Amino acid sequence: MANKHVYFFGGGRAEGKGNMKDILGGKGAGLAEMTNIGLPVPAGFTITTEVCDYFYKNSRKYPLGFDKEVLKALARLEKLAGKKFGDSADPLLISVRSGASRSMPGMMDTILNLGLNDKSVEGLAKKTSNRRFALDAYRRFITMYGATAMGVPRVKFDDEFDEVKESRTRGRLGQRGGIIQDTDVNEAELAELIGRLKDAYKANTKKDFPQDPNEQLWGSIDAVIGSWMAEKAVTYRRVEKISGLLGTAVNIVQMVFGNMGDHSGTGVCFTRDPNSGKNAFYGDMLMNAQGEDVVAGIRTPLHLSYLEKTLPVIYKQLCNVRAALEKHFKEMQDIEFTIETGKLYILQCRTGKRSPMAAFSIAVGMVKEKLITKNDAILRITDKDIEGLFYPVIDPNIPKEELKKALFATGIDAVPGAASGSVVFNAKDAEAWAGQGKNVILVRKETSPEDVGGMHAAKGILTATGGKTSHAAVVARGWGKCCVVGCEDLVIDYEAKTMSVGKTVINEGDELTLNGSTGEVFKGGMPLIKPELPEAYYTLMKWADETRVLKVRTNVDTPYDAENAIRLGAEGIGLCRTEHMFFDTDERRLAIQSMIVADNLEAREKALAEILPFQRKDFTGIFRAMDGKPVTIRLIDPPLHEFVPHTENDQKHLAQRLNLPFHVVKRKIDRLHEANPMLGHRGSRLCITYPEILDMQVRAIIEAACECKAKGIKVLPEIMLPLIIAVKELSILVDRIRKVADEVLAANGAKVDYLVGTMIEVPRAALLADELARVAEFFSFGTNDLTQMTLGMSRDDAGRFLPEYVDEKKAGILKSDPFQSLDVDGVGLLIKLGIEKGRRTRKNIKIGICGEHGGDPATVKFCHANGFNYVSCSPFRVPIARLAAAQAALAETRKKGR
Amino acid sequence: MANKHVYFFGGGRAEGKGNMKDILGGKGAGLAEMTNIGLPVPAGFTITTEVCDYFYKNSRKYPLGFDKEVLKALARLEKLAGKKFGDSADPLLISVRSGASRSMPGMMDTILNLGLNDKSVEGLAKKTSNRRFALDAYRRFITMYGATAMGVPRVKFDDEFDEVKESRTRGRLGQRGGIIQDTDVNEAELAELIGRLKDAYKANTKKDFPQDPNEQLWGSIDAVIGSWMAEKAVTYRRVEKISGLLGTAVNIVQMVFGNMGDHSGTGVCFTRDPNSGKNAFYGDMLMNAQGEDVVAGIRTPLHLSYLEKTLPVIYKQLCNVRAALEKHFKEMQDIEFTIETGKLYILQCRTGKRSPMAAFSIAVGMVKEKLITKNDAILRITDKDIEGLFYPVIDPNIPKEELKKALFATGIDAVPGAASGSVVFNAKDAEAWAGQGKNVILVRKETSPEDVGGMHAAKGILTATGGKTSHAAVVARGWGKCCVVGCEDLVIDYEAKTMSVGKTVINEGDELTLNGSTGEVFKGGMPLIKPELPEAYYTLMKWADETRVLKVRTNVDTPYDAENAIRLGAEGIGLCRTEHMFFDTDERRLAIQSMIVADNLEAREKALAEILPFQRKDFTGIFRAMDGKPVTIRLIDPPLHEFVPHTENDQKHLAQRLNLPFHVVKRKIDRLHEANPMLGHRGSRLCITYPEILDMQVRAIIEAACECKAKGIKVLPEIMLPLIIAVKELSILVDRIRKVADEVLAANGAKVDYLVGTMIEVPRAALLADELARVAEFFSFGTNDLTQMTLGMSRDDAGRFLPEYVDEKKAGILKSDPFQSLDVDGVGLLIKLGIEKGRRTRKNIKIGICGEHGGDPATVKFCHANGFNYVSCSPFRVPIARLAAAQAALAETRKKGR
Repeated sequence: MANKHVYFFGGGRAEGKGNMKDILGGKGAGLAEMTNIGLPVPAGFTITTEVCDYFYKNSRKYPLGFDKEVLKALARLEKLAGKKFGDSADPLLISVRSGASRSMPGMMDTILNLGLNDKSVEGLAKKTSNRRFALDAYRRFITMYGATAMGVPRVKFDDEFDEVKESRTRGRLGQRGGIIQDTDVNEAELAELIGRLKDAYKANTKKDFPQDPNEQLWGSIDAVIGSWMAEKAVTYRRVEKISGLLGTAVNIVQMVFGNMGDHSGTGVCFTRDPNSGKNAFYGDMLMNAQGEDVVAGIRTPLHLSYLEKTLPVIYKQLCNVRAALEKHFKEMQDIEFTIETGKLYILQCRTGKRSPMAAFSIAVGMVKEKLITKNDAILRITDKDIEGLFYPVIDPNIPKEELKKALFATGIDAVPGAASGSVVFNAKDAEAWAGQGKNVILVRKETSPEDVGGMHAAKGILTATGGKTSHAAVVARGWGKCCVVGCEDLVIDYEAKTMSVGKTVINEGDELTLNGSTGEVFKGGMPLIKPELPEAYYTLMKWADETRVLKVRTNVDTPYDAENAIRLGAEGIGLCRTEHMFFDTDERRLAIQSMIVADNLEAREKALAEILPFQRKDFTGIFRAMDGKPVTIRLIDPPLHEFVPHTENDQKHLAQRLNLPFHVVKRKIDRLHEANPMLGHRGSRLCITYPEILDMQVRAIIEAACECKAKGIKVLPEIMLPLIIAVKELSILVDRIRKVADEVLAANGAKVDYLVGTMIEVPRAALLADELARVAEFFSFGTNDLTQMTLGMSRDDAGRFLPEYVDEKKAGILKSDPFQSLDVDGVGLLIKLGIEKGRRTRKNIKIGICGEHGGDPATVKFCHANGFNYVSCSPFRVPIARLAAAQAALAETRKKGR
Repeated sequence: MANKHVYFFGGGRAEGKGNMKDILGGKGAGLAEMTNIGLPVPAGFTITTEVCDYFYKNSRKYPLGFDKEVLKALARLEKLAGKKFGDSADPLLISVRSGASRSMPGMMDTILNLGLNDKSVEGLAKKTSNRRFALDAYRRFITMYGATAMGVPRVKFDDEFDEVKESRTRGRLGQRGGIIQDTDVNEAELAELIGRLKDAYKANTKKDFPQDPNEQLWGSIDAVIGSWMAEKAVTYRRVEKISGLLGTAVNIVQMVFGNMGDHSGTGVCFTRDPNSGKNAFYGDMLMNAQGEDVVAGIRTPLHLSYLEKTLPVIYKQLCNVRAALEKHFKEMQDIEFTIETGKLYILQCRTGKRSPMAAFSIAVGMVKEKLITKNDAILRITDKDIEGLFYPVIDPNIPKEELKKALFATGIDAVPGAASGSVVFNAKDAEAWAGQGKNVILVRKETSPEDVGGMHAAKGILTATGGKTSHAAVVARGWGKCCVVGCEDLVIDYEAKTMSVGKTVINEGDELTLNGSTGEVFKGGMPLIKPELPEAYYTLMKWADETRVLKVRTNVDTPYDAENAIRLGAEGIGLCRTEHMFFDTDERRLAIQSMIVADNLEAREKALAEILPFQRKDFTGIFRAMDGKPVTIRLIDPPLHEFVPHTENDQKHLAQRLNLPFHVVKRKIDRLHEANPMLGHRGSRLCITYPEILDMQVRAIIEAACECKAKGIKVLPEIMLPLIIAVKELSILVDRIRKVADEVLAANGAKVDYLVGTMIEVPRAALLADELARVAEFFSFGTNDLTQMTLGMSRDDAGRFLPEYVDEKKAGILKSDPFQSLDVDGVGLLIKLGIEKGRRTRKNIKIGICGEHGGDPATVKFCHANGFNYVSCSPFRVPIARLAAAQAALAETRKKGR
């Protein structure tokens, strides 16, 4: 390794550059870049990440000659500063900071004032004519070096400080009064404190506090590099999936002091308002303070306007820095600055964090200001930004302590947003209470299709079991309704209508607040706020739509949701589940149940005839809402036992309504029980054994289409068969669909174009896609089931082990939750095979995805890359999919461009 | 189509040959071949199957010039016979028969005596000086032509015959007495009958009975060809998966008569004994009778030895025919012959059906006689032959009527053989009663691992639900124990200890007999017989073993079964399930249950420590039994809830034994409930979340290996991980296995070679086999689960729709039950991909199959063709697999040879 290990910056020039993050780290690259563009950065040098890398690859040794390079850079710094490191009269003081190419908690933080010792502290005192300042600096350095570099528990030093403060209170040091502030501690006390701190240092490290600045320096460098492999940092990188980094850099910078009097100060500012995104300078500062004081929150910070008033020249300078940085980085920047006796220094700059709303405003604003292109703007928005715009959130003004006190339990964050209301424990109560205008939270052990009415009525849903793609989560997500699932600590007692965690009991009617973005459940009703969509959102989404190739459809089952989805940008329906319609009213429920309980074809057909008008009405509404956009309707999918009641009482009620003996109804229902319903008698298997169901559904679809067409509404139905495994199965059903459809069309004298296709959601279907494409006019990958079957993993049961499988701290077997983001390695391989085989037979077969993954940005990118025609997702994820599709298109273009 | 449509045979020469079955049909080809080798076959001609094919492809028209060909052949026949067709003085009479290349019910059968009419019947009377004979021939012809060719219900003619017989009883025709036999009907009565039959013919066809022999001939040809597309025949071909045939041939043969007096007769014989396979002439005959009389069973047939005594010359001739046929066809033949006034005619020959025992004896016998090669012999044996040798069967001497009367219900034939005993309704009773020396039949709605003890104790198992690969079927098959499952009509009342079908009730203790080969369930205890294995079996299997390339292993869990499997030829254990061991005794059960209920690692490890000695003992026994043969041990696989009790009583009992509050045990067990246990927390997922289970099992395996090795027993353990889906998962567990194993070996100062590998039973594992092969030393395809997941089909639930899916009469979507015979198109594709990818990474990776399919001949052939190293199956299927492997090897050699 004959590389350069140390990069110097200062005097208006830097050896490094902004694009050298990989080896200088984010902080080092920022300092170099700012130096190069002429900003007032204190001089210093950066030890590269390659040193860290070498260190761990070579039994914790530094590269040959590295120490000489450091000393050389230090000498250069001394020359530039006109001070000597360790000089007892006028010492060069430095700060030492870690800095990888990504910000990363768990690594060693800052050490300030390095270079001070018992002698030079007096030199500094003389030189600054401020002994208190000098002692305070030394006190801080001993504490930081001891705690941060040497790993002495911080409390050991804080205890000493408290002791000193308390002893004054007790009068030992000659002054009386209450508890005093750090800033009130006087010189004598500081001197006493320094002695105590050094004693504490020795007691805990078995060594004297080092007086040799070089020893201090190397101790700090060792500590920074050692912290790269500290458990906390390693864990963080695992959890955040950060890999491929060489290590951390070490930044050594000349100290500047914001605490040297009234012309000194320090602050943090953003080049634009990080909340609204407005192009306005935004920041806080403290006069006569060091950075750590701002962080500690001891004094109330001042607005930047204070600076404008008191130090207008400095403010002007800072405004120039702001302009220069935005022009240079073309991004909103987060700046740390210090003013040392009337001179401005910029200590750090980085891309600033912002609210979702600000993300859009800034991106669009910068395009309008011609700072960036539309494409840049599109690439800057994340799915979290979009999500954050839509969901209500718990009022961010509520103090954290209050939230902490109210925390009742934590489950899995299934659908983001927040909800609050009164607790109910069954779907009927939810409907009834909501009917009375109450906000309710439906709490269930788990939900089933029978609960759908109550789920719809509730403001939020909480379940004790299930994962992110359990029934509750999937249904709630479809509506964008706040949902927390898998809250395993909950003990729910349906009879007593209570739930408890440990000794805390919540009764029916008690107020509860859910945070679906974090999985937290709070006692009491927290105030919620729902932001309005900014204009910039619409502008940016329009650009995204102009950019993307993939179409974005939605998964909805009702005209209401369809209209909503269109407003959110849906270009069609990719999945209209026909079975949710069966639960809409008691009447419908009864009709489907009598169909299921029917013993013979005749009785079944009679019951189906009752359902037909309902289905036709639903389809008519949906076609009208979609007005010519394609509507993919999936024929009946779930196993029949999902439609029937399972408690004795409900079964008795059903028997009564159907005029059948109870034992007949019970026996019929018992017989529907399945060991593994996911792999049971469902999907197209139902249409093979009960083709009359298919007949009814196709009739309803095509009759609705005829009705709409007669009224001048354009219709484009795509009839889809679920769970297909063989071409013969498909062709039997497709033939039957066409027969019924053509009969209806002939009877109505109408002509309606319709497609017939299949879901690919069973591995066998993907494997034999070439055969299926002979019959199917389109494929829609049902990645929910395809994932379950390809991984042999039931989404309802995976809660017991999947966390361990995706948790990098534990086994870390899968890259991410395969029900959230497509398992590209496994399921993705099968999908690619399916597409390749399908297109081999039918070149232009239309290909879409309608699983939950359709709204996941990474999956959307996969779909773009693999030639899908569209993705389909729940309405609330449509904007996310639109953006992700645009980003995928741009990423591809840029890749090709290279 | 300028082909030859008619093939003549007669006068010692035939235009066709024995290998022309495709166009002459089986019967026609046989007649031609026999003619060519000089056997006394009546002359005639065969209309080819191509005519039938042409007919259906050309709007039911015959090919041009076909009629002329027929007439030409007829003229040639007349010349050879010296008689004219339709001649009123001495008519040529012929038979017309269908005959495709495979025998096939549902098609038109035989028409005899064609050519007779009102005039020629008198000519025949004169010529034979036997008017009764002539009238009887005419009577038969009218009936057969009317019923068989014209579709008049047979009963219409039979009624007339009865009427005639009854009228004599009533004295109208001048004679008195009781009901009379056909043969007692006199000339006058026959003449009366002929009139009545012609009237009946007219009444039912609206036409006169045709007097023109040509019309009779063409009517019959039309009827034969028309019957090819009769519903029954079409269905039969679908069901039996017969396809690719052109159609049926039509055989027109000069009549010979066995009913022309004491020197006439007719019979059926086999060239060897079809029951024992002995090389002895075997057959039955009737003197003075026509073939249909033998079939009708009116007279008791005579043994061939009667012929030897009465007509020694004819007998000698017949013996010569027997020798000639065997020499020519090199197969045991089934021969129909007729003696017409002292002259022998052979009417038909075909490969004879035989008992399983005879199949072996004949094949081996013919090799010893140098008629065929060893390879021929191997290829002639079927899996059914082997099965038939091993299983007890209901005494075949029990009259069919008796069986029919006793039939109680019919389920799915899960495991062949028969069993009879007293009915019990739970596993404990089964064990208790069997302990008292009773034969019991265990009847359950469905079985679970908790029932295994009782299942083992029972002679046979009957369940109301489940398919051929349900728990009951799989476990029973492992033991070769008779099992009928999915007997859906059964209503079982566990409390009352009764079961019923309709109004028939069977109580606990009642005798019941199961026929696992047919799925029939009989009331009462039927006598059973169990055949002994013939010497020929061992000879032939030795040849098979010398021929095959694939190794055959077995799936067993106990030393007892292991020894049994070795006797049946197993070369190792391909699947030793470790969890069955947990149910063996109350003590073991309790230990595993307390492990599951344990709340923390410590308690779990304590419980595991109790299980360790049991497992070690089991493994020691198995290693000893296998003595150096490889033993693949699968670590724990089923979900934990399969190990715990589910009734409140049993849970209370468990709580008591574990000294825990009932609600704690209940809650723990309730929490184990899964929506889709097949896709849940099981397999290696258990070892990821509870690695201490893996530690215990590996320790037990390696300690057992050390113990055996110390005693000089060779051991070859192969540790196998189930349900693996990712290489990281695999490597975490493989590392842990090696760590524990190496610790144990070091502690014992022992060296034991062991392999670590993975099952491929989840689609993702097959898709990513290249990655898995980096870590796995062997792959074992678990085709049970792989099938379930690839087809999205739970074997426990498929009963509701799978019959429809595999039934060719209904949907016919799958070629066969995918749980019986590997779904080569779908699952097979995935397996091929897995092998190809696996071998890409690790060239010589050992590959096996351990699903139920390992014992299915078609699957064994697939495995041979795709480079598996071994198949593994239940002990009782080991011989079948050995044979199938040999056949696969031969088929490949022959294919290459071409």
